[in-house]
Amino acid sequence: MSNIKEFENVLIVGLGLIGGSIAKKIKDIDYSANVYGFEKNQEILKEAKKKGLITNGKVVDLKDSKNLLVIFCVPVLSFRPALNSVKKFLPSQNIVFTDTLSAKTEIFNTLSNEFNGILGNFVLSHPIAGSEKSSLYNSKKSLFENQVVVISPHEKNNQEDIDKVINFWGLLGSSSKILSYKDHDFLFSKTSHLPHVISYSLTESLFKSLGERTFDFSGGSLEDYTRIASSDPLMWKDILISNHQNILDSIEDFEESLASLKDLIKNKDEKALVDYFNKVKILRDNSV
Amino acid sequence: MSNIKEFENVLIVGLGLIGGSIAKKIKDIDYSANVYGFEKNQEILKEAKKKGLITNGKVVDLKDSKNLLVIFCVPVLSFRPALNSVKKFLPSQNIVFTDTLSAKTEIFNTLSNEFNGILGNFVLSHPIAGSEKSSLYNSKKSLFENQVVVISPHEKNNQEDIDKVINFWGLLGSSSKILSYKDHDFLFSKTSHLPHVISYSLTESLFKSLGERTFDFSGGSLEDYTRIASSDPLMWKDILISNHQNILDSIEDFEESLASLKDLIKNKDEKALVDYFNKVKILRDNSV
Repeated sequence: MSNIKEFENVLIVGLGLIGGSIAKKIKDIDYSANVYGFEKNQEILKEAKKKGLITNGKVVDLKDSKNLLVIFCVPVLSFRPALNSVKKFLPSQNIVFTDTLSAKTEIFNTLSNEFNGILGNFVLSHPIAGSEKSSLYNSKKSLFENQVVVISPHEKNNQEDIDKVINFWGLLGSSSKILSYKDHDFLFSKTSHLPHVISYSLTESLFKSLGERTFDFSGGSLEDYTRIASSDPLMWKDILISNHQNILDSIEDFEESLASLKDLIKNKDEKALVDYFNKVKILRDNSV
Repeated sequence: MSNIKEFENVLIVGLGLIGGSIAKKIKDIDYSANVYGFEKNQEILKEAKKKGLITNGKVVDLKDSKNLLVIFCVPVLSFRPALNSVKKFLPSQNIVFTDTLSAKTEIFNTLSNEFNGILGNFVLSHPIAGSEKSSLYNSKKSLFENQVVVISPHEKNNQEDIDKVINFWGLLGSSSKILSYKDHDFLFSKTSHLPHVISYSLTESLFKSLGERTFDFSGGSLEDYTRIASSDPLMWKDILISNHQNILDSIEDFEESLASLKDLIKNKDEKALVDYFNKVKILRDNSV
């Protein structure tokens, strides 16, 4: 893919942790495109301009720009209003769209139902990178280095757009893996969304019974284990709402596994407990 | 406490991750005591002697030794048989006992009911240090550096023994905090045992639905989140059995918190979800 032409213009919609990290990496690698930012928070927009991450001020007009990448880095449920806001100043063609969001079916359905004209040029992507520390101020150029980006092509996409998006992420340091948007939402409801739900409810239950003593005797692993409960509340509310059926199913699977382990503890079933733990340990040790 | 006399002899009962790490640190700091090991696995015992961590071979006779520390580093339910095995070759006095185990009420009750003669000289301790990688082969001299050891004095203890044990851990790099054995078991059922139970059942539920794909798209945080599910099965079976009532209560508290979060997701209650996450985030961010 080394002969793929780079984008001449990049519009980053949402200058938080993800959008800010994209802008910083683009600046760092001296990517040849003009970089623009769209951001409702004017203070953040000014800060991004001051840091030389974007070229525009409050007003963006890209009607005459060519070979443009528009990349959405907003909470999932802000995608629709954000797209409505930016489409007014975009050119009528020669655009590739992508995103960075954690719930893909919601995005696909929104496009399919309300923005069918751009669906074909919208390549869904999701970089598996982030931090519990949100905002432009915590963004960093290294966020995508040696990470995986999930690309979810759909039947309206053309291969050229897909390759350009894969190439873009490659320049930012990430390798791509392909997964349909439905598989994505199924899989990530279990491997990412469920652990967040668990971390939130574990932290809630600990504070409810222990209050300020919660971290008094921790050796550090509880901090690690509850770290993701410090994630951005708005972003995670949107993910859980958008992918809610998969997540509810995943919670119920987990509740079953927990209930069966609880029974073994209640019954002091030593042999079955060792068998349960051995099975899990072997599966995990052979996979990680 | 700098004028506390060091132990002249140290017997480490169980040469796994914890016992091995104690022996390595003692060797590293050139502690003045003779170090002995008791270990059922003859291969491990030979390995420890070959590495210069202990002075004895298969036979240990400490009947004439003075100023002895005996430290138990075996799974909780192996404590009773281990104590029965070693007490035969111990002197009749001038011993301080301690342990490193994660469930203290079980140890206290065993001593109180069956070994009342040594209860007074047994100072319960629990270093908050460990790894999902068990055995002597994974032990390391740095394991206790800058860690906390919980000391659980009881009414039969004397202050001199307590101070000597605190001092011993200090020489290994750890600071001590005092907590009654009942408080210890209550608190650690929530901050340590519950996260292990959750990690085991999360990992079980993921492999049940995703099999080999479980870690295919993980960016590393799922590996962190399930890491403790690779812990030693026998050790954790013993902890869950020994502290089972506290742990069952903690699981039920957690199940309630999870159920209420599940309801918010089911009802797509956006405001309540943000409130839930904000509350947890603020509590955690202010405590860690």
